[in-house]
Amino acid sequence: MERYDIAIIGTGPAGLSAAITAKIRNKKILLIGNKDFSNKLQKAHLIKNYLGFPSVSGKDLAKAFESHLEDMGIEITEEKVNAVYSMGEFFALQTAENMYEATTVILATGVMAGKMYPGEEELLGRGVSYCATCDAPLYGGKTAAIIGSSPKEEAEAEFLAEVASKVFYIPTYKGEIQLADNIEIVREKPKSIEESDGIRKLKTDRGDYEVDGVFILRESVSPGQLVPGLEVDKNHVKVNRKMETSIPGCFACGDIVGEPYQYIKSAGEGNIAALSAVSYLAALRRKQLEQNESE
Amino acid sequence: MERYDIAIIGTGPAGLSAAITAKIRNKKILLIGNKDFSNKLQKAHLIKNYLGFPSVSGKDLAKAFESHLEDMGIEITEEKVNAVYSMGEFFALQTAENMYEATTVILATGVMAGKMYPGEEELLGRGVSYCATCDAPLYGGKTAAIIGSSPKEEAEAEFLAEVASKVFYIPTYKGEIQLADNIEIVREKPKSIEESDGIRKLKTDRGDYEVDGVFILRESVSPGQLVPGLEVDKNHVKVNRKMETSIPGCFACGDIVGEPYQYIKSAGEGNIAALSAVSYLAALRRKQLEQNESE
Repeated sequence: MERYDIAIIGTGPAGLSAAITAKIRNKKILLIGNKDFSNKLQKAHLIKNYLGFPSVSGKDLAKAFESHLEDMGIEITEEKVNAVYSMGEFFALQTAENMYEATTVILATGVMAGKMYPGEEELLGRGVSYCATCDAPLYGGKTAAIIGSSPKEEAEAEFLAEVASKVFYIPTYKGEIQLADNIEIVREKPKSIEESDGIRKLKTDRGDYEVDGVFILRESVSPGQLVPGLEVDKNHVKVNRKMETSIPGCFACGDIVGEPYQYIKSAGEGNIAALSAVSYLAALRRKQLEQNESE
Repeated sequence: MERYDIAIIGTGPAGLSAAITAKIRNKKILLIGNKDFSNKLQKAHLIKNYLGFPSVSGKDLAKAFESHLEDMGIEITEEKVNAVYSMGEFFALQTAENMYEATTVILATGVMAGKMYPGEEELLGRGVSYCATCDAPLYGGKTAAIIGSSPKEEAEAEFLAEVASKVFYIPTYKGEIQLADNIEIVREKPKSIEESDGIRKLKTDRGDYEVDGVFILRESVSPGQLVPGLEVDKNHVKVNRKMETSIPGCFACGDIVGEPYQYIKSAGEGNIAALSAVSYLAALRRKQLEQNESE
């Protein structure tokens, strides 16, 4: 399998800045995330403190970022990373469609919007999952609920419904939805996930749904779920000033590492994370050369 | 005396970004530094990794920064800060011309270019000084050498020569220089400052100059000299991820806090430093209100 030098997860200002700096340093990069960048950026009405752009709209700043990527020939791989596994010498990135390998990883997925549902953390892996594609095989003939944060998740519901006997789809967004017959669209507000006496329930503001499992599909998963073993502080990844996380070769930047949630702060941190990854790769290369010489 | 909420020292990307964010937060700011921003920025041929500006020249990026300042009505006070003293409740900033007071200070003066001369640190305050205007009165009838890094320092030499009997002016830059009669322009390379048996000498690559004192006038002084008592690590100020220094109310950002020396990193840190100063001011205000209530 092709191995990237640096995999950058997330296409907000942190991820984009990291990608640009890594590319300038001639690294083989994989930039993975939404092609329209972050939702938050696109929706920002007016940004006044991104130095160099007086009073710019989110859309216009996004356009400037886009032309910067084009200018440097950087492409975005539009997939959603469900998990990153540290394999010792490299990292394996699991998306719904593919597996990727990279020597270093930069996490720039932003901060998870909203809180976890009561019961979500406790039941994770025991009835709660973040990836329908990954866990669908476990639901043959069973009943599941999917909480979807965007129309993209509808495909996940369709895929799950091919295996499961019954799927409840609970969108947390507005708009028309057309899904397969065995999918029931539930326009209610999820409240909690509970289990007692072996029976699991998704509770909403208007009713209880008995299910075998609940899939929660958000724009971003919590960092601790994304990278098993990563040291976190609530929703944030712990980093030092070099943007190094607790896992060697894994760096993080932007909203995911903490406040303030500001575009220019994220862009600055992306630059640091990329240069730290470049240093890490150089040190690794030196180590490998020394080992080869001593053999 | 008028007291500013936040005094920002330095007009590179870190200082400018801090100024913009502080202004948006309605703070009374003093931005002090060169009106043409940092020399390094102006001279940069091509900058490729300031996200949003693909392949921009230093001059063009500086223009974008300038219009951002104009758009927000931020003015630069063009003076050089020689020392910052923590007075407990506020900071006193000493320039050659004025004294300023501010509740918080953000240091964004960049990193001192070049190394210290041998002997410089040891003899500081005992024959070595960074401010001719401040220490000139001590040189009545004496001999002094000035190492000047830019034409701006020529005025300092003239001022010193009004008091001293003899001044050697050693420019570390090129170009025509016209100075008073009792100033000898020495086109040599300073090597070290030495003292033995009570005799002080400035040694150059071509000779020894016996002097009572040596003034070293660089674009920026070392942070430990600028703010007495500040915790430093060689040429860098120690900060945490909030850009807080070892002195409460004093923040730092940009090249002065360490590598990587990158524009976007500096701008990001300036934003963090400003928001940390804003939080500090809010906490201080709460404390004062509580004290007033309990009285």
